[in-house]
Amino acid sequence: MENSVRNSVPIIKFDGNSFVDMQDEVAMEYPLTIFIDNEEFATMVCSPTNLEELVVGFLASEGLIRTFEEIASMAVDEGKGLVYISLKIKQSINKEFYSKRFIGSCCGKSRQFYFHNDARTARTVLSKNQITSEQCFHLMKLMHEQSVDFQQTGGVHNAALCTADQLLYIQTDIGRHNALDKLYGICLKEKLPRNDKIISFSGRVSSEVLLKAAKMGIGIILSKSAPTTLAIELANDLGITVVGFIRKHQFNIYSHPERIIEGKSGE
Amino acid sequence: MENSVRNSVPIIKFDGNSFVDMQDEVAMEYPLTIFIDNEEFATMVCSPTNLEELVVGFLASEGLIRTFEEIASMAVDEGKGLVYISLKIKQSINKEFYSKRFIGSCCGKSRQFYFHNDARTARTVLSKNQITSEQCFHLMKLMHEQSVDFQQTGGVHNAALCTADQLLYIQTDIGRHNALDKLYGICLKEKLPRNDKIISFSGRVSSEVLLKAAKMGIGIILSKSAPTTLAIELANDLGITVVGFIRKHQFNIYSHPERIIEGKSGE
Repeated sequence: MENSVRNSVPIIKFDGNSFVDMQDEVAMEYPLTIFIDNEEFATMVCSPTNLEELVVGFLASEGLIRTFEEIASMAVDEGKGLVYISLKIKQSINKEFYSKRFIGSCCGKSRQFYFHNDARTARTVLSKNQITSEQCFHLMKLMHEQSVDFQQTGGVHNAALCTADQLLYIQTDIGRHNALDKLYGICLKEKLPRNDKIISFSGRVSSEVLLKAAKMGIGIILSKSAPTTLAIELANDLGITVVGFIRKHQFNIYSHPERIIEGKSGE
Repeated sequence: MENSVRNSVPIIKFDGNSFVDMQDEVAMEYPLTIFIDNEEFATMVCSPTNLEELVVGFLASEGLIRTFEEIASMAVDEGKGLVYISLKIKQSINKEFYSKRFIGSCCGKSRQFYFHNDARTARTVLSKNQITSEQCFHLMKLMHEQSVDFQQTGGVHNAALCTADQLLYIQTDIGRHNALDKLYGICLKEKLPRNDKIISFSGRVSSEVLLKAAKMGIGIILSKSAPTTLAIELANDLGITVVGFIRKHQFNIYSHPERIIEGKSGE
C-alpha cells in the first residue's frame, strides 16, 4: 500500500509581514476499526500506511497472536477504515479485560469514543475573541520563557491559559491531554470564563487536543507545532481557530482565520 | 502541591570521547487511579503536579461534572497514587460505555493495563547484542535521512528496525506506538529474529514504548529524545538498554549500559 501519511490542506501563512493563502502538508489521522471474528475489537487512530503490518503488530502486542500464521484471514477496507480478522484459534476475548484496553495510538483517539462521549461534551465554540499576529508571537514567547521543565527533561508538554496579552496559568505534564485537563480544572475551580481566553500549547494539535479545547469553550489555540488533518476538520466544524508552527516571525492559520487580525497588540 | 514533574536519575553520558557517570533530570510518569463513589473509574499516567486540577478537568472533559461544585468531596492519596471522588449527584456510569474510555494520557498507560495484559506479553529481554557508540550515531543519522515526512509535517514519529550497521525497515505514524506496531508486524510477517536487532526511534521513550520493545524482544532502543522515569525503571527490570538524547556527538545511556561499547564500528 502506498498511501501517504500526509495530506495537502489550505492554510493562511503569516510570513512576518502579511497573510498569504497557500497549501501546506499536514499529518493525517486515520481511524481504523478492527473486527476479530466478526466482533468489534478496537478502534485506533493511525497514519494510513502499512495497515496490515500495524494490525498484525497490534494483535501481537495485545497478546492475541504470537505468529503471523495464527491469522486465518485479513481483509482491509481502506475506504471505510475497517479491518476484518479471522483467527485460526478462536479466542474467547475476555470482554471486561479487553474493554479496558488502551488504544495504542499516542495522542490519537478511538472513533467510538468520539461519537459516544465527545458528542455529549464538545460543543461549537462561538467565541468572538480576536488577537493580533503580534499577540500570537508574544503569548508563545511568554509560555516558552516560563517552561523550564522542557529544556531540562525534553519530555513534557506545556499548556497555558492566556488572555490576549497575558499568560494566566501554565501547566506541565508528560501527557498533552493532562496539561489541558489541568487548565480545565483550574478554570472550573476558579470559575473563569473561557470564551475570551486563548490556549497556548507546546505540542502537536491532535484531534483530541482540539476536542479538549472545544469542551472548554476556547476559541483560539496557538501551537509551536503542527495540527493533524483530523484536528483541522474538527476545528472547522467546531468553530476553533488553530494557529500552528509559530516560530520566529512566521505562523500558519489552519482554521477560522477571522479571529487573527493584523497589527501590533493594542492597535 | 509542589511536586516536580522531573526526577534526578543516574545516567552514563557519552560526551563524544568517553563515558561519564552523572545525574540527569528525567520526566516522571506517575500513575493515578480515580475512584468515583467507591468504584474504580480510570487510571491515567501523568506528571505528579496539580493532581486536583487534573482530576477536575478530566471529569469535566468526560462529561461527569460541569462545575466544580458538583464534586462533594475529593481526597488525594499522593503516596499511593489514588484519588477518591464523591459526586453530589450520583451518576449511574454506563459500564460498557465508560470501560471503553480512552485514558487521557498521551503516551502514558493505565496501571491496570500494565498489570493485566503486559504481564502476559512483556518478557525480560536476554539479548546479548552489543553496538558501538559510533553505530548509535550512525543509525540515528540513517533514520533521520530517510524520514522526510517529519520535516514536511512536523507531526509524525519514525521507528526503524536496524542491525548494528543497517537500517532494515522504517515506519512512520502519528502515533508512536503505531510506528512500533508496524515494525512488530513486519517482523512477524517476515519471520525476522529480533534479539540481534536495534530500534531507532524519533520520539520520547515512554513506559509504553519500552513495553512494546520488551514484547518484541528488542534489547537496544536508540532515541533522539528523552525517556521517562517509569520507562527507565521498566528498562532496568526488563533488561533493555535505553540510549537517549542522541544528538551531534553526545548521547546518554539510561539503563543496561553493557550493550553499548566504545569504539568505531567494525572495531
